[in-house]
Amino acid sequence: MAKDKKLVEQITSMEEDFAQWYTDVVLKADLIDYTSVKGCMVIKPAGYAIWELIERQLDARFKETGVENVYLPMFIPESLLQKEKDHVEGFAPEVAWVTHGGLNELQERLCVRPTSETLFCDFYKNEIESYRDLPKVYNQWCSVVRWEKETRPFLRSREFLWQEGHTAHATAKEAEERTIQMLNVYADFCEEVLAIPVVRGQKTEKEKFAGAKATYTIEALMHDGKALQSGTSHNFGDGFAKAFGIQYTSKDNKLEYVHQTSWGMTTRLIGAIIMVHGDNSGLVLPPKVAPVQVMIVPVMQKKEGVLEKAAELKDKLSAYRVKVDDSDKNPGWKFAEQEMRGIPLRVEIGPRDIEANKALVVRRDTGDKQEVSLDEIESVIGQLLETMQQDMYNKALAHREANTHTAVNWDEFTDIIEKKQGFIKAMWCGETECEEAIKDETGASTRCMPFTQEKLADTCVHCGRPAKKMVYFGRAY
Amino acid sequence: MAKDKKLVEQITSMEEDFAQWYTDVVLKADLIDYTSVKGCMVIKPAGYAIWELIERQLDARFKETGVENVYLPMFIPESLLQKEKDHVEGFAPEVAWVTHGGLNELQERLCVRPTSETLFCDFYKNEIESYRDLPKVYNQWCSVVRWEKETRPFLRSREFLWQEGHTAHATAKEAEERTIQMLNVYADFCEEVLAIPVVRGQKTEKEKFAGAKATYTIEALMHDGKALQSGTSHNFGDGFAKAFGIQYTSKDNKLEYVHQTSWGMTTRLIGAIIMVHGDNSGLVLPPKVAPVQVMIVPVMQKKEGVLEKAAELKDKLSAYRVKVDDSDKNPGWKFAEQEMRGIPLRVEIGPRDIEANKALVVRRDTGDKQEVSLDEIESVIGQLLETMQQDMYNKALAHREANTHTAVNWDEFTDIIEKKQGFIKAMWCGETECEEAIKDETGASTRCMPFTQEKLADTCVHCGRPAKKMVYFGRAY
Repeated sequence: MAKDKKLVEQITSMEEDFAQWYTDVVLKADLIDYTSVKGCMVIKPAGYAIWELIERQLDARFKETGVENVYLPMFIPESLLQKEKDHVEGFAPEVAWVTHGGLNELQERLCVRPTSETLFCDFYKNEIESYRDLPKVYNQWCSVVRWEKETRPFLRSREFLWQEGHTAHATAKEAEERTIQMLNVYADFCEEVLAIPVVRGQKTEKEKFAGAKATYTIEALMHDGKALQSGTSHNFGDGFAKAFGIQYTSKDNKLEYVHQTSWGMTTRLIGAIIMVHGDNSGLVLPPKVAPVQVMIVPVMQKKEGVLEKAAELKDKLSAYRVKVDDSDKNPGWKFAEQEMRGIPLRVEIGPRDIEANKALVVRRDTGDKQEVSLDEIESVIGQLLETMQQDMYNKALAHREANTHTAVNWDEFTDIIEKKQGFIKAMWCGETECEEAIKDETGASTRCMPFTQEKLADTCVHCGRPAKKMVYFGRAY
Repeated sequence: MAKDKKLVEQITSMEEDFAQWYTDVVLKADLIDYTSVKGCMVIKPAGYAIWELIERQLDARFKETGVENVYLPMFIPESLLQKEKDHVEGFAPEVAWVTHGGLNELQERLCVRPTSETLFCDFYKNEIESYRDLPKVYNQWCSVVRWEKETRPFLRSREFLWQEGHTAHATAKEAEERTIQMLNVYADFCEEVLAIPVVRGQKTEKEKFAGAKATYTIEALMHDGKALQSGTSHNFGDGFAKAFGIQYTSKDNKLEYVHQTSWGMTTRLIGAIIMVHGDNSGLVLPPKVAPVQVMIVPVMQKKEGVLEKAAELKDKLSAYRVKVDDSDKNPGWKFAEQEMRGIPLRVEIGPRDIEANKALVVRRDTGDKQEVSLDEIESVIGQLLETMQQDMYNKALAHREANTHTAVNWDEFTDIIEKKQGFIKAMWCGETECEEAIKDETGASTRCMPFTQEKLADTCVHCGRPAKKMVYFGRAY
């Protein structure tokens, strides 16, 4: 058995070096590979299958709210990018520029889209004439490019996959409602599908999206106590509409500007799954996004009837995503490999089990083992997957609660920063200057002004001026 | 009613100007819009929903054969593109070059992938060590860029969506089998899902893919008698493996080169659907790729109970992709609009129908109308969708057969070219020189050497030398 654990032993432990543990898991669980293209990765089958499950389930939730999918070009002419001034300032320093097509130099440079607000505006400008054309609630699944200097698999790469929703509405109220609605779709998806609890709130002026009137965010806490921004939803008001001239004729025949929103989630979510649920044996996948939910491992598989029974069991469990590992590796190696890959349930079946009409079912998250009669196994597996999904959420929530601290003054704040990890809830005066000072002194940034506000004190935790908002602070990815 | 037909009247008729008819349908059926990015289009909801149905169904067929999805970077370093000499010669003249990242000039130019053979080779080189790592049967869904000079929506654009499968095998035999297997997956998909009959065959040396040992193709005939290459599958032999050094250790411990394949289908298929099935009222969608299969149109919808009954009918038909058009447009306009968008079945229901417990069902392809009892409507709709799918295939097949001609000598060939349209089957000597002469003189290129060969004559239709192959010739998109 010792030899079979080699796969696992090569992982750095989380406690020793979390960053190295993360990289080890990403590679050992076969999620990605590095490439000759600096800052870009290959998403391998085990990683991409997770993304497919995210995409399918998130897309279905979008469609329930009336979202329609479209596809816009990957290139943005430089003049188009420059139309909204905050937006271009935010993105121009980090885009990739196409200057030549075939053998010829282009008359105008094109950037590879870092996000598509400007393209959607250019499109909507032609599409929208009257109030009858509103709302437009479009989304696209695509890849985007941001020329990051330091990159890490899933968390920050020069190219990543995402969805970007872009909507146009007749009124400011409708736009605000859609912005919040999509944030809630994201939050529910994280909690119900990824088993990751999130804090819902608004970004400060400093942290909001380039060109937005308001940015809302969901913030999750990773196992190491750092925060990860996991999805954002922006209300643009009519700023882009004015820059691009997107107007419609209202019912009473007046020319009005539309109000717009955008919202996005990315392959970064796979990083969140790893860092929230993973352990020192590797990845732990929530059943709802596990490409393989149940792996059947035949024991003594050369004995007559074992592989047949395993195949029969697979058919019986066809309501789930199930596979049989009938490779010629020995069972110990298989167990370690499946743990590394985070497969929720392992079912061991050998000659003695078959004789007793049972199998051994092992949970990835807790390691709990139970013998299950083959007559009942289908429903037991279903229940275990549901329980595991819920337990993983509860565990992550307990971890976040244990790592969310309250500071009412600066001494408390710095004490927590020094001795603990996680979120710090504290009052804030609302000034960017103060927010920047806190970040400079402690490394903790404002994660969000949560929708659920509490009054912890009357004064700002840093400057002592009257407090305006309770904020979640934290060090972040 | 006359006024309501305006939408339709604005279409050029196919007979008058097929190219203009195509453009009219693409725009009027709301499939695409032009953009500020020359040669790139927006795929609008009605168009993208077709692509989603293609993607889901084709992807499911891939997975049944063991294909796994991955995602590789969109950029290819210039040095990587240059590793296989035929390949770089084929693609370098038509790629888009990224020269700057953020504010800095890149040390090495990157092209935006026109196809990903080189990236997959670079990836496989690291992934493959032993025979145990084979085969690799990977695919990705993504967009690619080719800097075309003349562009047309779906048929030829600077950026398009596609899937590209890339496989690596231990033996030449296995690679050849996979190449043919995927061509057959494509052909079956076209025939069974898109209702488009195809000719399966091999491309000539002149027409094969840059870097391939052999290229296989499926060729479809459009309504105007021109051919459309609808999917290709390439066997690379070990050419790329040698250029990139992709070797594995065999069972008997020898170092061997892998054998590779690639295969792709694109958004061009939407162009094929339009040009095979469309008519002078607009698009006609095969039920299996129709985003809306059944549109219910309430007649006299302001009368009490009509909208309620329409909604009830929608629920009853929930096994299909069904919608109710309860907009305030009048029925005539709605009918024309739905015809334009190619919706397979229209169900009209008004006060008198409700009283008689029936509805009027109208087929898009034939215009046939039938009264259907509301008690039986669910199963009747199901049968009609199946019949329509099959009828559309049969009609397209009959059109192809009526437009496939045989020429045994050059007089016959030129006579057909002058007076008829469609495929010409003829014998060929196998010389590229002769193939080029035929194209120069007639505009007809070799579409493929079909798998099903016939001996039409002993000599080449053009030069009179001994014939080697029967070939399908045709003018093509």
